[in-house]
Order: sequence, then structure tokens, then C-alpha cells
Amino acid sequence: MSAAIKSTEPENQISTEKPLPNSRRIYVEGDQPGVRVPFREIEQSPTRNFDGTPEENSPVRVYDTSGPWGDNAVRCEVSEGLPALRRHWILERGDVEGYQGRDVKPIDDGYLTFESANHARQREKGRLEDFPVLQRVPLRAKSGSCVTQMHYARRGIITPEMEFIAIRENLGLKRGHLARISNEASNGGQDARAPRDSLLHQHRGQSFGASIPEYVTPEFVRDEVARGRAIIPANINHPESEPMIIGRNFLVKINANIGNSAVLSSIDDEVEKMRWAIKCGSDTVMDLSTGKNIHATREWILRNSPVPIGTVPIYQALEKVGGKAEELTWEIFRDTLIEQAEQGVDYFTIHAGVRLPYIPLTAKRTTGIVSRGGSIMAKWCLAHHEESFLYTRFREICDIMAAYDVSFSLGDGLRPGSIADANDEAQFAELATLGELTRIAWERDCQVMIEGPGHVPMHLIKENMDKQLETCQEAPFYTLGPLTTDIAPGYDHITSAIGAAMIGWFGTAMLCYVTPKEHLGLPNKKDVKDGVIAYKIAAHAADLAKGHPGAQYRDNALSKARFEFRWEDQFNLSLDPEVAREYHDETLPQEGAKLAHFCSMCGPHFCSMKITQDVREYAAKKQIDEQAALEVGMKEKAEEFIEKGAEVYAKA
Amino acid sequence: MSAAIKSTEPENQISTEKPLPNSRRIYVEGDQPGVRVPFREIEQSPTRNFDGTPEENSPVRVYDTSGPWGDNAVRCEVSEGLPALRRHWILERGDVEGYQGRDVKPIDDGYLTFESANHARQREKGRLEDFPVLQRVPLRAKSGSCVTQMHYARRGIITPEMEFIAIRENLGLKRGHLARISNEASNGGQDARAPRDSLLHQHRGQSFGASIPEYVTPEFVRDEVARGRAIIPANINHPESEPMIIGRNFLVKINANIGNSAVLSSIDDEVEKMRWAIKCGSDTVMDLSTGKNIHATREWILRNSPVPIGTVPIYQALEKVGGKAEELTWEIFRDTLIEQAEQGVDYFTIHAGVRLPYIPLTAKRTTGIVSRGGSIMAKWCLAHHEESFLYTRFREICDIMAAYDVSFSLGDGLRPGSIADANDEAQFAELATLGELTRIAWERDCQVMIEGPGHVPMHLIKENMDKQLETCQEAPFYTLGPLTTDIAPGYDHITSAIGAAMIGWFGTAMLCYVTPKEHLGLPNKKDVKDGVIAYKIAAHAADLAKGHPGAQYRDNALSKARFEFRWEDQFNLSLDPEVAREYHDETLPQEGAKLAHFCSMCGPHFCSMKITQDVREYAAKKQIDEQAALEVGMKEKAEEFIEKGAEVYAKA
Repeated sequence: MSAAIKSTEPENQISTEKPLPNSRRIYVEGDQPGVRVPFREIEQSPTRNFDGTPEENSPVRVYDTSGPWGDNAVRCEVSEGLPALRRHWILERGDVEGYQGRDVKPIDDGYLTFESANHARQREKGRLEDFPVLQRVPLRAKSGSCVTQMHYARRGIITPEMEFIAIRENLGLKRGHLARISNEASNGGQDARAPRDSLLHQHRGQSFGASIPEYVTPEFVRDEVARGRAIIPANINHPESEPMIIGRNFLVKINANIGNSAVLSSIDDEVEKMRWAIKCGSDTVMDLSTGKNIHATREWILRNSPVPIGTVPIYQALEKVGGKAEELTWEIFRDTLIEQAEQGVDYFTIHAGVRLPYIPLTAKRTTGIVSRGGSIMAKWCLAHHEESFLYTRFREICDIMAAYDVSFSLGDGLRPGSIADANDEAQFAELATLGELTRIAWERDCQVMIEGPGHVPMHLIKENMDKQLETCQEAPFYTLGPLTTDIAPGYDHITSAIGAAMIGWFGTAMLCYVTPKEHLGLPNKKDVKDGVIAYKIAAHAADLAKGHPGAQYRDNALSKARFEFRWEDQFNLSLDPEVAREYHDETLPQEGAKLAHFCSMCGPHFCSMKITQDVREYAAKKQIDEQAALEVGMKEKAEEFIEKGAEVYAKA
Repeated sequence: MSAAIKSTEPENQISTEKPLPNSRRIYVEGDQPGVRVPFREIEQSPTRNFDGTPEENSPVRVYDTSGPWGDNAVRCEVSEGLPALRRHWILERGDVEGYQGRDVKPIDDGYLTFESANHARQREKGRLEDFPVLQRVPLRAKSGSCVTQMHYARRGIITPEMEFIAIRENLGLKRGHLARISNEASNGGQDARAPRDSLLHQHRGQSFGASIPEYVTPEFVRDEVARGRAIIPANINHPESEPMIIGRNFLVKINANIGNSAVLSSIDDEVEKMRWAIKCGSDTVMDLSTGKNIHATREWILRNSPVPIGTVPIYQALEKVGGKAEELTWEIFRDTLIEQAEQGVDYFTIHAGVRLPYIPLTAKRTTGIVSRGGSIMAKWCLAHHEESFLYTRFREICDIMAAYDVSFSLGDGLRPGSIADANDEAQFAELATLGELTRIAWERDCQVMIEGPGHVPMHLIKENMDKQLETCQEAPFYTLGPLTTDIAPGYDHITSAIGAAMIGWFGTAMLCYVTPKEHLGLPNKKDVKDGVIAYKIAAHAADLAKGHPGAQYRDNALSKARFEFRWEDQFNLSLDPEVAREYHDETLPQEGAKLAHFCSMCGPHFCSMKITQDVREYAAKKQIDEQAALEVGMKEKAEEFIEKGAEVYAKA
């Protein structure tokens, strides 16, 4: 299969095979065995001072979601899957058992018989053959046990997953280093911050009541998970995943959706899109496949994914009943949950808040119910005149989640699909139910996050966040966008990055990306990248605004490189080095231009950054003490203002 | 020249020659002679009801910046320029005189002699030849007269420009129609809004103390201009321009920058970029050319532009002294102002707030002074140890502005070039001076807007707006972005659209676009479009959030089309119809797919919108009274909550 992976798209800037420029993989080890946290370090060139002396610039370390795929020293084969990093930790806890899992049936992949399944696979020779067979039997909690990270956390256990996450969130830096930043950021204020010429300088953030720590300890991770303010999506059957956390007091995360559909796309494409998404920086990936081969596609993705994988199980359940929502049953749904839990899905979107009495609330909407899961359940409820089985069977669902540590992503089946429908009764009625269900899940030590937004104008975004925090007692919020206008199909990664950045700032823990193809078609690799980058921007903008310790370091390093005309460093430190370089090369392709002290916008004789450097040089030559000048400047300014101000106001 | 216009780029989706789909140009006439305001009307197809009956959808009228270029009935030739729409109004006022303007000199285009200029033009044969000669002599105010729109406004005169603008801002609708929307929007609140299924439905906005009227009257325009809260950039020598207004109580506007540089780009390209930018929706265009042929490029642009043109005169002045900032003089600068005012430039960026005492405040910055104009003046000040001549000669500059009605765009020469430098002492010291200069200009009836932001993290954006409103007494704010992070070169249209949408919501009147090439190179046509669309999104998101009357109409219409699977209408109503269609065609190229009741994401059997329609249909069939169901639903919901809530809380 490895050789068979070909994108149907023309070659894009970032290839999954090509390493990111000037980067090396490093690992920081923890105290518990096997805790070895990956980071990417970006090397920089030295600064050339005006007197010609070079001055070293430290490498910049960044959070890395690419897993073993991003380590040049590791040979990965798609057909073999990734190493089972967490398996030892899971078995060590002594609370799981292997068992003969559920048999895979033809219907799991959308075929009625094995014959038709084989027929289809022969027809698609080379695309569907040779799926890897899971060599392990599935694990589940021993009878009477609960294997969720929340369960351990509440018992005071710091799991290796929690230690891994603490190191990861701190970028593997020692307390002293990071605290230096955060102290200045959170205790300093306008006047007491790090000097503005220091890379550690950071603005004090505004976090709207979050409890962002100066330094993330394993104990802090445990405590946040125990109280439900954060989740660690970590199915015991997905040991390939590298632990990560979703919570408002941690770095804002992003999710990329992939998945084939009845209309388009092959397994190869989806695995490649997953690798592509995590290379670009996606923290989790949702497989939203809906056509044939759902089971097989998911198996390939899970075995090769170092990030948590989410799904919407009702999609597959619907395929099993030929697309007829009214024929769905609790038994088919339950069987699908088990099937996916055994495969290792880390979180399930479950639309248990779409209750029968709320459905009429959507009848007058401009765009009705736009969530697929929500509309399926609405149809079922109306057809049966019965309350949703997802709601009535919620406690049974919890038992399954607890047995595999699948996290809930409580779906927002009634999210608004247009600006007109934002923040309406249907939406907030469902949210109230999600709060109720959160409590029920927490009673069973199940991990929960809450899905939100959709289309919401800017001034109504904060109400969503505030209501969610209150109703769901700070369970992590996971929002699609929101899109801040309806009028830009083709550009909804932008309409929604605006809303996503804002809601991330207000407290949302994970942002579900939107690609340029939203509303129009299935994303290709370029769209996946555009969506991920737009959302990395939104998430990072939110981290900066919240004042997350150390968040500004990369901005400071890139801006310093930019100011010093270290073009290569500017490209390499950016979210998409290849595109940054390509855009620069379009105007000034010569290699020499990347050493030049000017850029294409202004030309060699006329560049503001060059002039500013000249100003500094001039000041130095004239032996002007800048500090003295500063003081004089401030004083003159103050006097000027009083004088001029008085004059102006006297005239007015 | 018309035939010579070729883009150096591969053909992009929107051609300046190709009309926008399903659109027609209409005009709404005013009371004053010659007031004839252009709009674009987008035709829609009928809704197909479930019983098969068609239901008409009214055409959607949108603001149109494309001028005569967007009217298929008008033949425009680049070599002839546009008709002089405003010339009669200007002459009618009887306060201007034609005069023998300043001679064009070789140095105006960067050449030392006519010989070298001719030599260069011969070398570039076909690209620089045959510039149109202005057949008119320039106009200026008669001695003792002031010809600014502010001057007229303060004398109680409603100019044709003001009436044009009032009609334009109301989309040419009668008071009754628009008031219906705005009453519901501004007096209604959550419960008293237009029915959610009405296209007139609109959320009540949050405008942070703006005074957005329910309906824009010519008198309101006059009053806003008189008090300085809005400007009408309208040089008497640019009669080709269609009047538009910039102020916080009007629709948020956007500006696109174009301009050649010493390194790249030809006049043809720049004219084509201007046409491209206004076709995409740019409200004004700044010509920031810096290399050779500045005068000639500007002439071509002005004669062909229906939108106001802005410049930064210090760029051309610097070219005239060979790029050596210290050799700039007041005389050269003044001569450049006259040169450009005679050509018809509508607003000048003047960095008069970069004062000598502020320059040391930038020495410790991460990225120093990044504004080109700001750094030129800083260099001049330090070289001469003198206060900036832009500051000391400000009253003389006002006299020139008043004689041609050139509006001030008071430049933010000390804007932050990195997140680290946001909201620092240098930036706010300059802003205070801009407030002082605003008062001086207003004393002379000069129109003023204030430039702002740059790189600012989200949580520091509002401070910029609040300080500007206070310091500059609500003179319109005109901001670059702001960019909300430094780490995404190649995607700065997105990093900045986030900040632009927010600051537009907070009260900024015009947003200066940023293209994907920002920091990296000169934008091509694709970049210009990407920048303009990103900023149309930001401006529209701001209008929605502010609750601008009627702003939501286009969103409602597009969402209705989307919900009803009127694909063609969805494309046509979008900001970029060609891209929307192209993305849809990538997945489902068949013509039939555009009539299909499903989309490529979900396939034919599984589409949330289809299911929602089924839900409605089902409800109708079962003769369920939706209103009754609604009431029952609300009641059940309320009871459920109390019941379940009590149970859950009892257990907790």
C-alpha cells in the first residue's frame, strides 16, 4: 500500500515525504518509563551585527503533531502501522483484558455479503487490497474496572499520558525557563514585562477567567482531567497515539476532518490526508467517511495515526441500514460503537442532545438542521414519535465509553447553519441538555467535550462561550468555526478563522477546521492544508491573546529574523515554510536575494527596515545614549503635549 | 494601451473583462442633476416547493465599486479614461478656477533628463508609450475659497456627492423598505425581531457607541462630514470618481494597495490590478509605486479609476532625491503634493506624527520602524536633528489639501511591525499627535482620517480603537489589518482578516487589505483578489456585528438558496462566484449536479439539508401544526429540564 499512496491532486508545496526545512526532531524524556516527548527544533543562522561580528540565534522549539512520520530516523511503512507507544502503559495498569473481538462483517464496509465485498475489492484492485490485519486482539476494561484517564485522575494517579502531556505543553522546557516568561507575562503588566528586545518578552494576556498555569505540571494535568476541565482522548485500542490534552487552560488545539464519501475519494487518499493534516499541525483528525469501506478506511487511518482519531458513529450505523434513518435501532448503533471502540477510535461525536421536543424549534429556521448527525436523529425521532435512543440509552453508552476510554464529543446537532439561525432557542435548548449529559457522563468517569458553533456573527460569539462554560461546568468546548458571515463560499476557511480565533480566545479548547471547500465539495490535499494553516493561525492568535506562557516566543523569533533580513530563518520559522519561500522566490528568485538587506516591495534603496537599522547605526555612531534619548524623548513628549494640547484646546 | 494590457499571471478566475454571472447593472437616480447611483442586481431562480409550484425569489441588490467598467452597456477604453461624472458638479459650485498646472518634469518619473526618460520609454516600447494626455487643465480653489466637502457640509450645503452617497449606502432602497429591517434590528431585540424565516430578519447588533442610522439621508451624510466623523475623498481633479464615504456610521470600507516598485511591475499591470481590485469590491485603491514612472503610472490609474485613489507622496519625493532621505526638503515635498493634487489624488498619507522626540522610543523595539514613510521621516529628523517638516509645515500642507479637496490620511509611521511592539509608547505617542493635527486640519475645513494598527494581538485591538476615538474625536480610523500573529508569512491576509474584522466591528471605518504576499513580495492579480476577498469578508462580518441596517439581507438570501439547493444562486450571491462554482465542479462537474438535491460531501442518500426538508415535509404530511408543536415543545422542554435537572443535581 505504501507505494500505492498517490494523491489525486497535483503536487503541493508540502509533501508528506519531505522533511520541514532546517528542522530536527528531538525528544525530551520524562520520569516514567517510555515517556519520550517529540518536538521539532528549527535551527537559525547567526545575526550579522553592524560591526560584522556574528551572534548566534538559538534554535526555536515547536510543538510537533507529526509523530514518527516526522522523525527522519524512523522508517515508517503505511502497511505496517506505527509502533504501539502506549501499549505497555495500558497493560501495566492491570485493568484491561484482551478478548476475541467482534467479527468484522461485510456490512461494516457497506456490503451486504462477503461476495459483493470481494467483488468490489477486485474491481478496485490495488486500491482496496491487502488491508493490514490487526495482529493484536482488542482490549477492554476488566469487568468492574474503568479505564478512563478521568478515572485514574480522580484516584490521584498520574499516568504516563499525563506526564507526557505536561512535558509537551511546556515544550519540554524546565520550569525556570518557562516561568521566566510567564511571570513576566502574568504578573508584570505594561511596565514590568520582559524588556521589549528580549525574545522572552510577552504581553500579558486576557483569559476571561481561565486558570492558565505558569508551568504545566503532571499534577496540574491530573487535576484538570479529574475535574472535567480537560480531556485526554486515548482509547486503549489506539496505543499508537501520542498523548495530547484538550482544555481551556492548555494550548488551543485544532481538528481536521477527513473522510471519503459515497461520491468520491479512496482509502489511500484519506490516509494521505491524515498524514498531511498532522504534518501541517492538526492535533486530532476526525474520519467522517460515509460511503463504502468505512471500516477499512478507519483501520488504515488508526494504525497510522499518532494523533487521536474521532468519528461520528451514527454515520456508519446509517450506512448499515441503507441510509434510512427511521430504520436505525439502538442495537445497530450499539454494535457500531463496539466495532469502532475495538478499532481504537479516541472520541465519538454523539448527538444525544437532539431531543424530540426540540425538533419543532427548528422548523422556522432559515437553514433548519444542518448537522448530519442531528438531522438523522431528528428524522428518527419524528418517524417513531419517540425520544432519541441516544438520549434514553445515554447511560449504556457511557458504559461502553468507560470500557475503552473513548471520550465523548457531545454533538451539536442543532448548531446554526446560517447567520440568521445563530443563538436561537433550538441551539441553546440542546446545549442545556448537553450540560445535563455531561454530569451523567462525569458520574461514570467518562471524559467529555462539548461541540458548538457553526454560523455565528461576531457579536454573538461570546454568548455561546459564556453559556457553554456555565451550562457544562467548563467541560472543554470544541467548536466548528464559527463562520462569521454566509456570503463567502470558497473562502469559509477565512470567514470561520475569524470566529475561531475569537472563540478560542474566549475559552474554546479545540477548533474544528473548515476548508475552502466547505458547502461546496470534498477537500483535496491543498484544501486540507489551507484549512489546517488557517486554524493554526486562529489557535495561535488565541494563545497569544490568552497570554499562554511562551506563546509569543515564536512570533518574537520570527520577527527578529524578519527585521534582521534573515530570510531563510523567516521562512523556516513560519507555519508553512515552503509557501513563504515560494512567494518570495516569485519576485526575487536569485539565491542572493535571500541574503539581501532589502525586499521586493521596496527595492534596494528604499526599505523601511533598512532605514530603521540605519537609524540605529546612526544613533550609535553619534554616540547617542539611547536610554538617555529615551528619557529626554519622554520628557519632551510630555511637555509638548501639555503645551500644544493647551494651545489647541484653547482655540477650539 | 487597451490591447497592451496583459497580466503577467496565468488567467485567474475573475477576468476584468468577464461580467459577474446573472448580474445586471441598475442605476437609482437622485434629486440633484446627474446623481445616478450604480448597483449590481443578482437575479435568482425560483424556489421549487414540495408541491411542485415555483415561488419567485427577488433579485438581490449589492453595493458596486466597479464603476463604468462594470456596466456592459458602457464601452470603456483604458486609453481614453472614464467619463468625468463629477466635473459638472464641481464647476457648478463656482469656487474653482482652471490654471496652467505645474509642468511635468523628467524627475517626476524618476529620470534626470528628458533624454533618459525617452531612452527608457523606447527601450520599453509598447509598455510605456502613448500615455493619455489630460485634455483638461487642472482646477484649484479660487483665491480665498475652500472646496472641501467638509467646508460645504459645515455651511449646510448638501452636495450632489452627499446625495449620491446617501442613495449608495441605502442600496437605493426607499426608506420604508430599509427601515423595516432596521427597526426590527435596532428596536427589536431577541424576541421582537423579524420572523426568522424572513429575509429581512436581522440580529440586533452591538456597535460600541456608534450612531448608525436606520436610514441614511443626504442630511445625515452632510452632518457626519461636517463634524468630521466621516470623509468623502473627492479631489476636484478626479471627476471620474463615484462618491463614497468613510466613517464609522456607514458601511465598513476596504482599500487595496497596488503600485510598481524599483524591482518589478509595469504600468499595464498596475492599471489592470486597479480594475481587478474594484471588480472584486475594493472601495478605494492606494497607488504605492516607488520605482520609475510614478507620475505616469498614477495618471493612467486616476483617469481609469471610479474609486478614490490614495498615495503616500513622500515615496515620490524620495525618488526625486535619489532615495536619500536626508536630502528631502519641504520644497521638494510641497512640489510633489501639488503635482499629485493636480493629477487628482483623493487622499494623501502624511506621516506628520513621526516627531523627533518619538524616534528614540523605537530604538528598543523588536522591529523598529516598519512604515516606509515613518522610517524616511525618522531618518530625516535624525540626520538634521530637527523636527519633521511635515509637522512644522502642517498648516501649509492643510492649505494645499483645502485647495483641491485632498483628504488627509494621517499616517501611522510608528505602527508596530510585530506582536512584541504592539500598543507601545511610540505608537500611542504618535496617535496623540495625530489627534492634535486632526484639530488643526478641521480648523481649516480639511477632511481627515487616521491610520492605525499593524501587528496587534487580539486582546490589544480594542485599546487601539478606544484610544483613537478619544484622541481623534471620532475622525474615521483606517487600519492595516491588524495582523494577530507574526508566524504565518504567506497567509497574512488571514492573520490580518481576523484583526480587521474585529477592529471594523469596534468602529474602524476603512480596512487596508493585506495580501498573502505581505512581507514576502509584490502581489500579483491572484494575491490582490485574495486580499480583497479576505477584506470584504472582514468588512461584512463587521457590518453584521455592528447591526448595520440591511447588512444581513445577502447572508439570508444566500443561505436560503443554499438550503433550497439552488446551487447557481448560491454561487452567484457569493463574493466570488467563479471560485464557488469551480470548487463545486471539482467534485461534481456534471450540470445536473447543480440541480441535485444533495451535495458532494454527503452523497445522494445522506444529506442533512435534504433530511431537514424531509422533516418539514413529514411534519406537514402528518398535519402537525408546527406552531402548536413549537408550544408543546417549549413546554415539554421546560418540564423536562426541571425534572431531569432536579434528578441530576440530586445525585451529584
